[in-house]
Amino acid sequence: MIATTPEAPYWAVIFTAIFSGREEAEYAETAEAMVTLAHTMPGFLGYESAQGEGGLEITVSYWESEDAIRAWKRQADHIAAQKRGREAFYSAYTIRVARVERAYGFRA
Amino acid sequence: MIATTPEAPYWAVIFTAIFSGREEAEYAETAEAMVTLAHTMPGFLGYESAQGEGGLEITVSYWESEDAIRAWKRQADHIAAQKRGREAFYSAYTIRVARVERAYGFRA
Repeated sequence: MIATTPEAPYWAVIFTAIFSGREEAEYAETAEAMVTLAHTMPGFLGYESAQGEGGLEITVSYWESEDAIRAWKRQADHIAAQKRGREAFYSAYTIRVARVERAYGFRA
Repeated sequence: MIATTPEAPYWAVIFTAIFSGREEAEYAETAEAMVTLAHTMPGFLGYESAQGEGGLEITVSYWESEDAIRAWKRQADHIAAQKRGREAFYSAYTIRVARVERAYGFRA
């Protein structure tokens, strides 16, 4: 559930969105398909996703390079999903592309 | 709910954690206190937080600079909260410090 990622540096795409409440079945199906698809993309390292109150969704995906992120953004099925996202699933979203400079953690 | 942030570059702290299920009232109270406290810190830009299935929590906070992040990490009440996090609230967490290079979004 917490992504296992290599030593920094690597890249993160922070996707923060408000679910519209519409087309819930298609939204869930599309989200699952995109996770499966992302795993097949070169440079994909992992992802984390959580849904909060008021339809807030935070999904962070991790990538080896900016080029890998660009290729993912342009993948044809992903482009179709992005379009459905704007048409139906989301009332708003923000995407932030960030370079992870360091990481540390804790495990009980 | 989606943080309003300035033009990139700025910094993100991606905190991904598994809630232990223990001390739920203290956990909620501490989380709220830390949000209030973060807002008083120099260079704080905003935050987003969502809780998913299986106790997964993703909280992303945004900061003007790495120095602002370092000062937040060392803030005394925050240090006490981090200690309680490891003792009681979380079974695991990962913290990633990242530089946001670009951002874009959509609003219906």
